[in-house]
Amino acid sequence: MSAALLDATHDPALTSWVASAQAPCTDFPLQNLPLGRFRPAGSNEALRVGVAIGDDILDLKRAAEASGAGWSAQVLAWLAPLAAGDLNAFMALGAPARRGLRQALSAALRTGSAQQTALQACLLPQAQAEMALPCFIHDYTDFYTGIHHATTVGKLFRPDNPLLPNYKWVPIGYHGRASSIGVSGQAFRRPLGQFKAPDAEVPSFGPCRRLDWELEVGILVGAGNAQGAPLGMAQAEDDWFGLVLLNDWSARDVQAWEYQPLGPFLAKNFASTISPWVVTQEALAPFRRPFTRPEGDPQPLPYLDSPANRERGALDVRLSVALQTPAMRAASQPAQELMHSSMQDAYWTVAQLLTHHSSNGCNLQPGDLLGSGTLSGPAPAQGGSLLELTLGGKQPLTLANGETRTFLQDGDTVVLRGRCEAPGVAAIGFGACVGTVLPALA
Amino acid sequence: MSAALLDATHDPALTSWVASAQAPCTDFPLQNLPLGRFRPAGSNEALRVGVAIGDDILDLKRAAEASGAGWSAQVLAWLAPLAAGDLNAFMALGAPARRGLRQALSAALRTGSAQQTALQACLLPQAQAEMALPCFIHDYTDFYTGIHHATTVGKLFRPDNPLLPNYKWVPIGYHGRASSIGVSGQAFRRPLGQFKAPDAEVPSFGPCRRLDWELEVGILVGAGNAQGAPLGMAQAEDDWFGLVLLNDWSARDVQAWEYQPLGPFLAKNFASTISPWVVTQEALAPFRRPFTRPEGDPQPLPYLDSPANRERGALDVRLSVALQTPAMRAASQPAQELMHSSMQDAYWTVAQLLTHHSSNGCNLQPGDLLGSGTLSGPAPAQGGSLLELTLGGKQPLTLANGETRTFLQDGDTVVLRGRCEAPGVAAIGFGACVGTVLPALA
Repeated sequence: MSAALLDATHDPALTSWVASAQAPCTDFPLQNLPLGRFRPAGSNEALRVGVAIGDDILDLKRAAEASGAGWSAQVLAWLAPLAAGDLNAFMALGAPARRGLRQALSAALRTGSAQQTALQACLLPQAQAEMALPCFIHDYTDFYTGIHHATTVGKLFRPDNPLLPNYKWVPIGYHGRASSIGVSGQAFRRPLGQFKAPDAEVPSFGPCRRLDWELEVGILVGAGNAQGAPLGMAQAEDDWFGLVLLNDWSARDVQAWEYQPLGPFLAKNFASTISPWVVTQEALAPFRRPFTRPEGDPQPLPYLDSPANRERGALDVRLSVALQTPAMRAASQPAQELMHSSMQDAYWTVAQLLTHHSSNGCNLQPGDLLGSGTLSGPAPAQGGSLLELTLGGKQPLTLANGETRTFLQDGDTVVLRGRCEAPGVAAIGFGACVGTVLPALA
Repeated sequence: MSAALLDATHDPALTSWVASAQAPCTDFPLQNLPLGRFRPAGSNEALRVGVAIGDDILDLKRAAEASGAGWSAQVLAWLAPLAAGDLNAFMALGAPARRGLRQALSAALRTGSAQQTALQACLLPQAQAEMALPCFIHDYTDFYTGIHHATTVGKLFRPDNPLLPNYKWVPIGYHGRASSIGVSGQAFRRPLGQFKAPDAEVPSFGPCRRLDWELEVGILVGAGNAQGAPLGMAQAEDDWFGLVLLNDWSARDVQAWEYQPLGPFLAKNFASTISPWVVTQEALAPFRRPFTRPEGDPQPLPYLDSPANRERGALDVRLSVALQTPAMRAASQPAQELMHSSMQDAYWTVAQLLTHHSSNGCNLQPGDLLGSGTLSGPAPAQGGSLLELTLGGKQPLTLANGETRTFLQDGDTVVLRGRCEAPGVAAIGFGACVGTVLPALA
């Protein structure tokens, strides 16, 4: 743990007056305070930002308007864009606003807070909310920081050349599609696409046969940078707003045929799903870890290096993926866990991704999404996609109910989860990132 | 020419009461009527959409408000979003609005129009306008339809394998960065980046040494499609809104080192420049040409084929690139033309790009930008980038003033132009797409 970043809001002894918010039984204790965008389900009210606390949401629109809530003028100024549903405008205010709001919310929701009476009426059960994307995402970039994924998949696509010579020097990334990103609960049709079987003379067009999930973490940019004004490592460290879970659905047969020489395109852009609650970098402070390179690997070039990054650049976010098939759903069986891993195994840190991305002058904007790339663990059973877990579809997974899977079938639901736990601190979580495959267009 | 698409607005005998709008001496005669977004230079007025006519702009905000202009209720409804500077909202209305507005503007600006008196006061000289991006671009995709470019560059990057097996089957494309797209006049710092010389042990980080331009045409999407509801060829043909010129600036040394396996990233996203005037698909109707494949090449798969596409899918937009060095500028010499080509040589049509892009369910949104890819001509002197014209930097270009160039130097200005000419029709043009390289950050 990096004590330098901890303050009173991280005290594990703190409890909330919201009864369901007691660690370790919730992803959202008082020490988390993630932000998301919602409206009451079934209403046509304007979206507003709220804070997840236990099973509830503190509605920041109603909280800002609540008489007797006792917010300071500064806090009211921060709440204004959030009440209007504009998380991007709040992100643009940078770290001081993010940290200041956390302090205010932690105090307001704490057991014994004088604000309890006023705010009690501003809670909405999460079960009664319809969640939206937490912010407007103008640009989406997907990185490739999972070295175990890069190595395993590299072997499948390029047996002679799994990990390319640039991998340990450049945080490899590519641009993704923003329009088709949806929030947890997204259901999408199996994509049609063009692919070519190894033994076929010519390609064909039809429903994807090798549909996959990918386990990623999404980083949301804070204030960002002006064009031509790169973020240094210290600025980048301050700037990232928070994390969500990201399922980078992939059509493997389309990908294999289309991806050279310019990278994945239609194999990825039919849908991408993120979790609704943004866990801020402040909430993640107790789960910072030293960033080190395996012995013999090159050290990052100077523009991607800093003492703070070495001391606490890595993040121990524990991730898992579960699958619920239609048969499980029919039998009221829960989703079955397929794998687990940690973001700590990423080859590049969040600050390195922001710094590299802006190093050429590219402007990052509030709410831009940076995917981590697939976060597989070191063991074969820790593959962050079916492609890895089934060795390219050659070795089917057998599920507990006797079903098998190489790739996803229609009706399959995939559930990503993330959780941070460490001795002496309150555990926090990300909630679920859920997506379901619908049949292809007839 | 495809007579089916022509109507009275294409009559070459039509003239405008705007004196500077007489073909062939302008890019913007009455037969063109491109849309752009502007404000009076030096003002802080809100952006609004205007129509280029000769040397002037018809300000659609003032035109909508002009008493006695005599617009119908339907035309006033179309003008409302344009007066508010929201071209995207107008794009979302689809082909009927695009075509209807063209008819109305053609009639209003025609010699003898009863609207002349009311509209005369709504003109602003282009020289007094500050142009902005014509619309909000949420997503930017760059295709690779220039087969001569793909072949020449393929030889440089992969001598043994220049044109990959998928090229003639899949309209290859990848996602680009929307945030750093600027309008003509954009000046940007030479990017810093990571690259590795062939003889170097390890990569280094510093100012790009192989900075290049790329000549492309940008396609702006019209109404687009909902997620999961692909556009068929007929819909795609109707949907694209219009074209702009696009300079896809490229850092070749960064590109060579970073692009595998996921494609170009920081080599491209520091800046991209488009021309300010959107030439609509209706204005381009007289310049449609049959789309054919060279003998022996495969025909497009059925989802990318249609009789209309075969009959008139290609577009004869004639393109050129000119360079003005600081020495030329100091000597008041104009930019020197470096090459010319035609969009007609593209291997895929605009409708094929929209259809392919949405074929997997990916949603295209109004104003999305699709780059054609670099449009080189078949001859070596028709390379659409310095990379091609100098054989990867090995054979410098000698300019008329005795200077030489392999790649761009600080202060260089690159000017893209586009023009459509054919017998018996009024020639139209795109105006210029201008960009300038500033020195790298110290």
